[in-house]
Amino acid sequence: MAAENKATNITWHEGHVTREERGALLKQEGTTIWFTGLSGSGKSTIAFTLEHALVQRGHLAYVLDGDNIRHGLNKNLGFSAADREENIRRIGEVAKLFADAGLITMTSFISPYRKDRDLVRQLHAAGKLAFVEVHVSTPITTCEQRDPKGLYKKARAGELKNFTGIDDPYEEPLVPELTIDATSTSPQEAAALLLEYLEKQGILGKE
Amino acid sequence: MAAENKATNITWHEGHVTREERGALLKQEGTTIWFTGLSGSGKSTIAFTLEHALVQRGHLAYVLDGDNIRHGLNKNLGFSAADREENIRRIGEVAKLFADAGLITMTSFISPYRKDRDLVRQLHAAGKLAFVEVHVSTPITTCEQRDPKGLYKKARAGELKNFTGIDDPYEEPLVPELTIDATSTSPQEAAALLLEYLEKQGILGKE
Repeated sequence: MAAENKATNITWHEGHVTREERGALLKQEGTTIWFTGLSGSGKSTIAFTLEHALVQRGHLAYVLDGDNIRHGLNKNLGFSAADREENIRRIGEVAKLFADAGLITMTSFISPYRKDRDLVRQLHAAGKLAFVEVHVSTPITTCEQRDPKGLYKKARAGELKNFTGIDDPYEEPLVPELTIDATSTSPQEAAALLLEYLEKQGILGKE
Repeated sequence: MAAENKATNITWHEGHVTREERGALLKQEGTTIWFTGLSGSGKSTIAFTLEHALVQRGHLAYVLDGDNIRHGLNKNLGFSAADREENIRRIGEVAKLFADAGLITMTSFISPYRKDRDLVRQLHAAGKLAFVEVHVSTPITTCEQRDPKGLYKKARAGELKNFTGIDDPYEEPLVPELTIDATSTSPQEAAALLLEYLEKQGILGKE
């Protein structure tokens, strides 16, 4: 049978594929790049720009954001304090799985609370997986002027409660790996800075 | 600056990387291979054997199992009916994200209820993602003789309640893509059959 003939060319193993084997295949180290910042700060635009740049260079990258998380894995979570915490915890666990599988994963969520982000950092440290926190520090005045989804307008009108930056706090990272202000840095420049960072850290292998 | 010089070689995009671009990079179509069967039936051994075979051929594959799910993403779930359903739902959503990212993901969970597995199949269909249900149909007598974790012994002694096959039902898939009885098929033979299936379906590209 064909399958059995093919099988003779394969060395069979039963345990986990090692991280080194994955790294050699993808020429990269599985890594989570955690973007945090206000609504409208530019997190997603930078994340998707970086994703394209990485794939174009032959690396495997993926963006986790509201579109693929809130309508799927976390569709049974609301916006209570406990649900917000669980939202970030699950995203952190999924990012960790992606990193373990060898991908470079960008997460694009406001993730306003320091303790929730630090928990995700600790999860990665426990798994010896790289975690890069990127503070997209665009000031709220700029974010509110842009208001791409009209959310600030609704929050100011009182139609949205507990909106980060208006009536809910945003806790800035104390020691993020990178800080990018999208007022003065284009998405392309931001992605280039991140590529350079990933290369310097040895997360991207030689091409 | 170095990063900006490099950036001039890149065509910048802001939207999602397409599934076609991912497929071209990995020479595969993102797919979930969902193993279902009794405890001790051989699901994990087959899954890990296939994972190695795929990576050896230059494909990116990953196994989701109790070790990386129950202690992480689903550590806040118990074994009540609602929690078991949520356990499988979350695993299905994560597998879908992995498939969307382009990976071939093997899930290794008993997943005894037909309706939970069918929900995961529907999730994948809605996202136009390949889903391959593999029934590891090793009879319970064999599973119980093997009893690699000593769980059947505990269940028979009444120390474990609601144990699938003893005092909780296992609902066999009605139309699985593949059925493998590990009594008569070695893990290597099973992995070879699955490789052949993936090639025939066009999920694995030409090498």
